[in-house]
Amino acid sequence: MKLNDNFNNLKQSYLFVEIRKRVEAFTAANPNVEVIRLGIGDITRPLVPTVVEALSKASAEMGTPSGFKGYGYESDGYPFLREAIAGYYSASGAKISAGEIFVNDGAKSGLGNILNILGHSRVLIPDPVYPAYEDTNIMAGNELIYVDATEADGFLPAPPSEAVDVIYICSPNNPTGAVYSKTQLKAWVDYANANDALILFDSAYTEFIGDPSLPKSIFEIDGARTCALEFGTFSKMAGFTGVRCGWVIIPSELERNGVNVLNLWDRHQGSMFNGVSYIIQRGAEAALSARGLAENRANIAYYMENAKTITEALDKAGIKYTGGKNSPYVWLKCGRPSWDYFDYLLNEKNIVGTPGAGFGKNGEGWFRLTAFGTHELTKKAAERIAG
Amino acid sequence: MKLNDNFNNLKQSYLFVEIRKRVEAFTAANPNVEVIRLGIGDITRPLVPTVVEALSKASAEMGTPSGFKGYGYESDGYPFLREAIAGYYSASGAKISAGEIFVNDGAKSGLGNILNILGHSRVLIPDPVYPAYEDTNIMAGNELIYVDATEADGFLPAPPSEAVDVIYICSPNNPTGAVYSKTQLKAWVDYANANDALILFDSAYTEFIGDPSLPKSIFEIDGARTCALEFGTFSKMAGFTGVRCGWVIIPSELERNGVNVLNLWDRHQGSMFNGVSYIIQRGAEAALSARGLAENRANIAYYMENAKTITEALDKAGIKYTGGKNSPYVWLKCGRPSWDYFDYLLNEKNIVGTPGAGFGKNGEGWFRLTAFGTHELTKKAAERIAG
Repeated sequence: MKLNDNFNNLKQSYLFVEIRKRVEAFTAANPNVEVIRLGIGDITRPLVPTVVEALSKASAEMGTPSGFKGYGYESDGYPFLREAIAGYYSASGAKISAGEIFVNDGAKSGLGNILNILGHSRVLIPDPVYPAYEDTNIMAGNELIYVDATEADGFLPAPPSEAVDVIYICSPNNPTGAVYSKTQLKAWVDYANANDALILFDSAYTEFIGDPSLPKSIFEIDGARTCALEFGTFSKMAGFTGVRCGWVIIPSELERNGVNVLNLWDRHQGSMFNGVSYIIQRGAEAALSARGLAENRANIAYYMENAKTITEALDKAGIKYTGGKNSPYVWLKCGRPSWDYFDYLLNEKNIVGTPGAGFGKNGEGWFRLTAFGTHELTKKAAERIAG
Repeated sequence: MKLNDNFNNLKQSYLFVEIRKRVEAFTAANPNVEVIRLGIGDITRPLVPTVVEALSKASAEMGTPSGFKGYGYESDGYPFLREAIAGYYSASGAKISAGEIFVNDGAKSGLGNILNILGHSRVLIPDPVYPAYEDTNIMAGNELIYVDATEADGFLPAPPSEAVDVIYICSPNNPTGAVYSKTQLKAWVDYANANDALILFDSAYTEFIGDPSLPKSIFEIDGARTCALEFGTFSKMAGFTGVRCGWVIIPSELERNGVNVLNLWDRHQGSMFNGVSYIIQRGAEAALSARGLAENRANIAYYMENAKTITEALDKAGIKYTGGKNSPYVWLKCGRPSWDYFDYLLNEKNIVGTPGAGFGKNGEGWFRLTAFGTHELTKKAAERIAG
């Protein structure tokens, strides 16, 4: 028998292993130095009370004969959550019906599994990029085409001239923090429609957008319903990285070669998935309630205060960057190779961040800091950077 | 762009749609008749107290700064749960190390997603069969080879003469309730090792085994570590069909063409999955505690009392069957086309079951009843069948 030999084409990722190694070596040599970690890509504030209450209530419900839920809504999610997500979208102006929403265990699974319903594809991804886009397509044997994201375009590349089948867009972007405007996204939608391509839009960070002119969903753009899927998640907007819940939106009219994409995905999920825990779906519903949103937005504001602390320090130090305004990521120009800056920050300033070179060739010379720390430590780090 | 055209080869499954249609028509015409549903494949008893306590405790923990958990153990699961599962296996005699266990959201996802690490394969499935095995392989473009499971072999087919790459075994079986002996499983293990094939062993129903001579895990069989993966789930053993947690076991030494299968799966999960909710993993751990197991086994005993009620009625009526002894499924020979028997049971006895023909050609003339009802209704149904 044969295993999937596309896995042979994967590059080994040394990024986080190498970071850990260097930090461990430093702390071993300098046991009394306080190292501040601004490399973390995970939220740190606990679940909000409204969500905890809903999780506890649903847990108790599952222990009663009348409240117990077994299998149910395997491929798509409970109506109460699909409707809550549709309501969340309608508040920001995108019209999505509950029937177009498929609840899943997070954007990473959704973005990975969606490849199962595609044929062999030419796939466009930006460089620098979140590594999972790259790896899942290599595993699937797809052809990868890179589009350069650089300082010149504010790390917001425009569509290329050549045709592709699939396009990944993450806005606000990980790792660069850059956010597409409506006009810029419209160019991608037009390109996708003209080329019969599909956009896979990763909206993981849209709750960090403060500027009301910036799009929070690809479905705020005219024409997106005939070319786009959107992958959302409660991970960053509600602190669900360890709770696991997300969604995929597939417009009901989206089709390719006469095949309805929503129906294809429904069939896929029916055979490959048994749904998200009822308990977790109740927690997710609570996260979208008025009280849940308010509590979670207070956490987002807390993180964005950190982002402001960092960007003000960078401004003061005359360091260029993208992100940090409508994104928890600050992507700074370090003026030297990323790993040299990593060593400098670690050894001289005792701050840990993420070398941009780990996200692709265009990340070389750049560096990612995140807003997910505490106010106290982030302020200290900012003072050290500006000082 | 092209969608995955293997989906064109899927058969539309009308089984449960057709059942619902006929039941709805009957109840509309006979609004005052009590219809008893013994077709249900889902557990019905609520979560046990030990699990509910653990879920509530973990939910509360996630709302505290010190107890909050974000990302963690994405590809494999928390050590506390992996060790609990390893302990559960060691109690029944199979030596599995925690490092060989990958926690996931259920056997259906595990059995579906594992195909991503296989190359194009010749896949052996029994007929009759749980439809997801068939559908996921059709989607993946694999070649399906059927092995007949019939009354002659007690619905426990032996290995064929031809070579295959992948073999699906579910024991105790859904839908037939038949359970392989150690000797019979050994023949499959020997066949797989001789043919360089992989066995995908679905152990979803092993907690229903009462006979201590019957194997509960493929890893109780010598030689399985060089040819088998096992897919377990808390769904039926702990009432987790709506909670979602399962596991995959991959022996550390298992390899094909020099590639370590565990490492390949670890790489896959790292890019395609972000783990099961911490809350749910705590619930699953509790299900495997001494108290949790005792409470859950009381539920299993409850269901098996139903199975006994059904099989005694069949014995009395002189109807042949498999299952019902070490399985929640009773697979009876209805002596006529499955759908005719469905109509007879519905119209004459007011009982709903599942026509065997819906699981494959060898299911024709057979019929599935399940033990997941209440004592009261199952007794009533049994009296009607025997009467």
